[in-house]
Order: sequence, then C-alpha cells, then structure tokens
Amino acid sequence: MSKYEHIKEAAYLANMQLPKLDLVLFTFGNVSEVDRSQGVFAIKPSGVPYENLSPNDMVVVDFENNIVEGTLRPSSDTKTHAVLYKECEGIGGICHTHSTYATAWAQSHRDIPIYGTTHADYNIVDIPCAAPMSDEMIKGHYEHQTGYQILNCLRERGINYKELEMILVGNHAPFTWGKNADKAVHNSAVLETIAKLAFLTEQINPHVQRLKESLQRKHHERKHGPDSYYGQ
Amino acid sequence: MSKYEHIKEAAYLANMQLPKLDLVLFTFGNVSEVDRSQGVFAIKPSGVPYENLSPNDMVVVDFENNIVEGTLRPSSDTKTHAVLYKECEGIGGICHTHSTYATAWAQSHRDIPIYGTTHADYNIVDIPCAAPMSDEMIKGHYEHQTGYQILNCLRERGINYKELEMILVGNHAPFTWGKNADKAVHNSAVLETIAKLAFLTEQINPHVQRLKESLQRKHHERKHGPDSYYGQ
Amino acid sequence: MSKYEHIKEAAYLANMQLPKLDLVLFTFGNVSEVDRSQGVFAIKPSGVPYENLSPNDMVVVDFENNIVEGTLRPSSDTKTHAVLYKECEGIGGICHTHSTYATAWAQSHRDIPIYGTTHADYNIVDIPCAAPMSDEMIKGHYEHQTGYQILNCLRERGINYKELEMILVGNHAPFTWGKNADKAVHNSAVLETIAKLAFLTEQINPHVQRLKESLQRKHHERKHGPDSYYGQ
Amino acid sequence: MSKYEHIKEAAYLANMQLPKLDLVLFTFGNVSEVDRSQGVFAIKPSGVPYENLSPNDMVVVDFENNIVEGTLRPSSDTKTHAVLYKECEGIGGICHTHSTYATAWAQSHRDIPIYGTTHADYNIVDIPCAAPMSDEMIKGHYEHQTGYQILNCLRERGINYKELEMILVGNHAPFTWGKNADKAVHNSAVLETIAKLAFLTEQINPHVQRLKESLQRKHHERKHGPDSYYGQ
Repeated sequence: MSKYEHIKEAAYLANMQLPKLDLVLFTFGNVSEVDRSQGVFAIKPSGVPYENLSPNDMVVVDFENNIVEGTLRPSSDTKTHAVLYKECEGIGGICHTHSTYATAWAQSHRDIPIYGTTHADYNIVDIPCAAPMSDEMIKGHYEHQTGYQILNCLRERGINYKELEMILVGNHAPFTWGKNADKAVHNSAVLETIAKLAFLTEQINPHVQRLKESLQRKHHERKHGPDSYYGQ
Repeated sequence: MSKYEHIKEAAYLANMQLPKLDLVLFTFGNVSEVDRSQGVFAIKPSGVPYENLSPNDMVVVDFENNIVEGTLRPSSDTKTHAVLYKECEGIGGICHTHSTYATAWAQSHRDIPIYGTTHADYNIVDIPCAAPMSDEMIKGHYEHQTGYQILNCLRERGINYKELEMILVGNHAPFTWGKNADKAVHNSAVLETIAKLAFLTEQINPHVQRLKESLQRKHHERKHGPDSYYGQ
Repeated sequence: MSKYEHIKEAAYLANMQLPKLDLVLFTFGNVSEVDRSQGVFAIKPSGVPYENLSPNDMVVVDFENNIVEGTLRPSSDTKTHAVLYKECEGIGGICHTHSTYATAWAQSHRDIPIYGTTHADYNIVDIPCAAPMSDEMIKGHYEHQTGYQILNCLRERGINYKELEMILVGNHAPFTWGKNADKAVHNSAVLETIAKLAFLTEQINPHVQRLKESLQRKHHERKHGPDSYYGQ
Repeated sequence: MSKYEHIKEAAYLANMQLPKLDLVLFTFGNVSEVDRSQGVFAIKPSGVPYENLSPNDMVVVDFENNIVEGTLRPSSDTKTHAVLYKECEGIGGICHTHSTYATAWAQSHRDIPIYGTTHADYNIVDIPCAAPMSDEMIKGHYEHQTGYQILNCLRERGINYKELEMILVGNHAPFTWGKNADKAVHNSAVLETIAKLAFLTEQINPHVQRLKESLQRKHHERKHGPDSYYGQ
C-alpha cells in the first residue's frame, strides 16, 4: 500500500464533492490535500471526468512540482497549489472551481463586499479580487505566478491567509483553502453562496451599505473567537 | 422513552425538510417545535450536518435556555427561538434559514413589497425587514436580542404575529413560525418564493405598484377568512 | 367503475407532471380535463399535496360548478376552469400554476414581448397580461370573474383562444389550456421558459426589438401551418 | 445489422446527454453525428420525447437531405446540419439547443464578449451572434439558409470553424459542433456556462472590460496550443 494512501483518499473524496455541490461543469475544478511530514500533496489528474475517478488516479506531487507517485498528468493548476502549500504552512487543502457566481465576480474585477452575517460567519473582510497578472508574468510560469498573485494580493491588503480562506483571481475564478481538502471544498461552496447573495443584494438595493463593524465582529467571534459557541 | 419524544420527532422531521426544499447550504438553518404543557422545545443541535441527524440528536431546552435533555450543544440561534416562544403563546414551531432570495432582501435592508396574490395568500402586509440592532444590543446577549428585535419590529408596524408568520432580520436572514415546526418550514419555503418573485417583478418592471387592497383582501380571505374555501 | 375514470386518470397524470417540471411549490397549481359528451371535467382537490394524490381523489364537476363525483372539495380555482370550458368549446384541458417567471411577469403587469423563435414556435403574439379586475368584480364571484377576465382580454386584443393557449392574469399568475390536460401542462412549461428567456433578453439588451414578422410567421407555420413539418 | 449502427448509437447517446445536462425542455434540441466515408449523418427524429428514444429511432440522412435509413421524420433542423457537414469537412458532430442563457443572448442580438478564462479555454473571440436572415431567405428554404447564415457570419468575421465551435443564430438559439456528437454536446454545455457567466458579469459590473489579449492567448494555448498541457 502506498504511503500516500491517506491524502489520495482525502483528495479523492473532496474532489467528488464538487459535482454533488454543483460547483463544477465537466472537469472545471480540482482539489488537493497535503501531507506536510512527507512534503507532498495529492491532486486530481488533469481533464479526467469525475465519474471515472478513483482514489488511485490522484497524482502525488512535491512542492517543486515533481511527480512522486501516479501515472496520470496532474491538474494544470498544480503549480498554483504548490506555491500556496510552500508559502503557507497552515494550509492543509486547496480547492479551485469555476463556480458560477464567484467566477462572475472574478470576471467583473470586483471584490465581494461584506453585506451580511452569512459572509461574516466566515471572515470579516470583503473577498478580494486579485488583479490580473502583468503580461510578463503571464508569459512566464503562469500557474506558478498565479500562486504569487494570490499571496501578493493578500499581502497588499494586509490579510493573513488564516483569517480569509477564499479569494478571487481576476478574470479567472476562485481559489479556496483550509485545514484539509474537505474544508477547502466547504469554503468553495460558501464562497459561491456569498457571491450569489451579494449579487442579488445589489440588484435589490443598488445603494446598499456594507455590514456594520459590530455585527461583523459578533458573527465572526461566535463561530471563530476564543468564546465561540457554534458547532459541537 | 423520553417524554419529549413527540417534539424531538417533529423537530427532526421538520429540520430534514430544509435540504429537501433547497432552503439550506450545509448547516445554515434550524427548526424547533415546542411543547407548551412542559414548557420546553426541541431544536437542532449546532453545526451537525443534516445527513447525520437522528431524532435523538435534537436538544430539548426550556424558555430560559437551560438544556433539559440531550448531549449535544443546541443551535447557536436557540435563544432567539426561546424569546419568541416565551413572548408569543400561539407559536408552536420556529424555522430559521439563510435561504437565498429572502437573505438577499434582508441584506438589502428592504421590506418585501406585496406584489401579487401568492403573497396575499399568506398575509396582506409587506414582509418587514427588522433594522439591525444597536451596537449595544449586539455586544450584549445577541441571539436573545434578535428575538426582541423581531418582536419590536412587529410592534412598531402594528402587526400581530398571528397575521404574519415570517420576517427578515436586517443584514442577517429570515425567521418564520407557525402552529408547529412543519408549518414554520412551510412558511420559510413560501417566503423564499415570495422573495424571488418580488425580486424578478422589480427587474421586469421597475415602476411596478403594490397589489391593490381589494385583491389583497380577497385572496387572504379565501384562504384564511371565516368563509375560507381553500383546502379540505 | 366510474364513468369518469378516463378524465380522472388524465387529470391525475397531468397534475403529477407539475412538480416534475418544477412548476409548483407545495399545492400552488391545478390541472383539469373535460369530457364534453358528459358535460363535466375532473380537477385536482384543493390543497392536497401532490405526493398524496391518487386518480380517485380527482373531483368531477359540471360547468355550473356542481360536484358530480368525489368526496373532496375541488380546487379553489374550479370556477375559472368552468367558465373557460363553457365558453370555449375547443378546450380539452386547463392548467394553472404560480410558476416563477410567468408569475413575475403577471405581477409586473406586462405582456411578454415576442423576442425569439422559441416563442414563435407556439404563437405569434405577445403573451397578454390581463388587467386586474375592478373592485366590484373582485367582491363578487371572484374565480368565476377570473374566467371572464381572461376571455375579455382575448376579445379586446382580437385573439382567438385556439391561436394562443396561454395568458397571464395581472397580479396573479398564468393560466394555460390545450386539447387535453397533458397539452395544457406542456404549455405551462413552455410559457415558463418563454417568460424566463424574455426576462434575460431584456437584462442583456434593454433596447432589444421584438422578433420581425417574417420570422414569426415562418416558425409558427413550420409547427402549426397547413404544410407543417415538425413532429411525427 | 445496419451499416450505420455506429453513428446511430453515437447520435443517440449524445442526444440523451441533453436532458441530463439540463440543456433542453421537452424536444427543443437535436444532435447528429456524421460518417464521412458513407456521406451520411444520423440525427434525432422530430418531436420525439427523449425518454422514448432508442438508437434505432435515429434517422440517417445524406448531405442532400435524402433519408437513407429510418422510418421517422428527421429533426426539422436537419437541413441546417446538412449544410454544415457539406461545407465543413472537419465537423464530425452538431448540436442545437434552446438552452436558456445562450438563447437569451441570441434573442438580444448581441455577441457574447470574452470576459474570462473559462471562455478563453475554448476560444479567443467573442461568440458571434449571426444576424437574422433577410425576409427573402426566410421565405425560401429556411433551415437550409440557416446553415449558410452561420457560415456567412463566420466568413465575415474572419473566423475558421475549427477555431470556434459555437455560434448564436440571432432571435433563434445556439448551434455548436465538434469532432463528434459527444464533443458538440460538450460545447453546448460550455456555451451555456459562458453565456450565464457573461450575463452575470455585466450585471455585477456594467463597465467591465473584455479579457486582455495576453490572458486570452495563454489560456487557449495551454489547452489547445502545440505545447498544451491540459488533459491526459
């Protein structure tokens, strides 16, 4: 048995959540899970339909993008995952989709404003939309640079990746992360909901204001603060 | 057998309707049913996925928020339910969701105008959007205050909770109630439909007028008046 | 065996299509089928959930609204069906829903403009939105008057009910008809699609023009003209 | 066994994808697959519900619209398919639907602007909306002319059908093609997604700009260029 069995299984199960949660058309998404002790992560193979996947199809890759185990080519976004794992020690899983509403915001080059407590239950900043890369970065190692584009955006905004587990890449689509692959997928579904709610909110009231700070803090703390009382 | 079996079963069945009716993502919702003779209500445990729930997981709580039976932590919105049960004797069940269109109206800080007979079949006022709480109330017992925020809003508008079984909490999401948990869930689904219809109505005709009074009354009375002739 | 078995069965099967086609929430819809030789029609009982229905629950009513067979109370819209059957000899089935997009147009008090060939495949006029009734008509026999409101609207526009099998009732919702109950339900699903397409079309291009006449005629004739070549 | 078995089977399977992918209501769509060595293609019969179809119902037609095998009448759009097969040697399959968002763009008489990488993954031009035909062309062989309308539009824009496998026909709906019927259906689903994303993008940001060229090229080349690295 492979010594990567546990992350291949976890990555497989998380990938299989994407069609169930209606977050992907065909193969427009990929999820990975990392094993930090071994310095590798398991990720979906490129362009393989979800209904044909098995845990053994997951490709194991190190942080320098070398394939460590697996016979298939890994997701074309693998280098973006590698950068995020390498630079952010606390990340255990990463998810990328082209989910409808989050992608529409990314195409619109707009941050998603924080309009309600559904958003504040997860984080208390507008979801940033990272600017498209310069032409030079695009010509170079594109997917590698996508990872740095995400990190640069967080740095410029003064946001720690532990406080915000979701981002939009301008013109492209969302990336989310979390303590493991399952949580990363969870965050993708939440981001899609937040994106749809924010779209509708602006349609219903074009003059709407962002959520006031006291409510932001309250909702975030009851789920994430030291005295949180959500969940078991 | 527990002497709360009947309300645990009722609350369980009503909670399980939420994913079927497409009113919740993950655990973003909770339903309860009261037993007035025993002064307690059964409510969903906090953060437990619907697919893992069983009737026995329901938590029984009294109107002062003391856990009477159950090993799990109750929904984080339990105190809001307790206030409504305590202050409104006629309420038998309560439902809270973050359903998409109703939540978007709540985030927009707008009442839902009465535009058609689908709305009038249930009540003949605009669905109120309670204003967000003052910073002081938020810092205090937040969920407890949410209950009073709802009741204050009804009072200010001169609406009896028996004539309107649904409300929006500004920046947050909808709460609905009814004679039991099942009816409360029914009302949540109806509110979501009314909210979507009103959104589309304004998009199609930005100058639309509210439903005229004679039609409001007619539709409401054929379902709820002394000479109602809807249903069996 | 009842001598109304065939229309009860037909009405039952057509009613059961409504939830499958996603045209109703709960019991917000009803379908009927007529037997002209016996002067009666079978219609859904009022307020009974679709999952509990059986063919035997259908209520048989004559054109003067007398119950001829059945133990349940017929749909509250029965009198509207009766008027349409009485006044329009060519109608074999009637369907009423509160389907989302068609109802939003009805609430908007706007006809649905003919924007494309999907619409022209069925008829070559804008789908009329009948004006809300006068207060006097509402106070009288409301559902009875709803039938005449529909017929008056067709008359005013110079439209024969055989050329247009769908209409919106202002502030209320759509009614459709056809040679039998099955075709009436078919038309309700088509109307919902036409209504959604027209809504999106205006959002995408607020200055859009109606379909030009030559295309209207062509599409309609290939499906309905003397030299039609659609279908088997 | 028929010597057209393979294309009848392929056309059947591709047609059956349409309801699964939520691209059709009732029979509003048709797919065909060609056998160039025999100069014929298999296409869905006209107006037959998908749930009743079997591979044997597929109708085999040559490029001059003569029925070569099959007892049913072929799709009313058959002549459009024939023209495209005749004029474009590289096309192996064709799909026509009235899918919601793509049809709304067609009714709006607008090209779908390229706003993101989801679009660029497939092609790097705006999806053209072919102008409605002249009245003369409509009076003539309408479906035949629809094929030439598509080809003329591509020619006017200087687009090769191998670089763009999807188009809108003004006031009507989309047509897509590909190396076989399965890929043509795939492209219809992708077009519907692109159309929905572009609609939402403009709603969220009415001043949005088209995707910049460097990103268009990068995304297209990683999937289709000589050094592509997407898929297996």
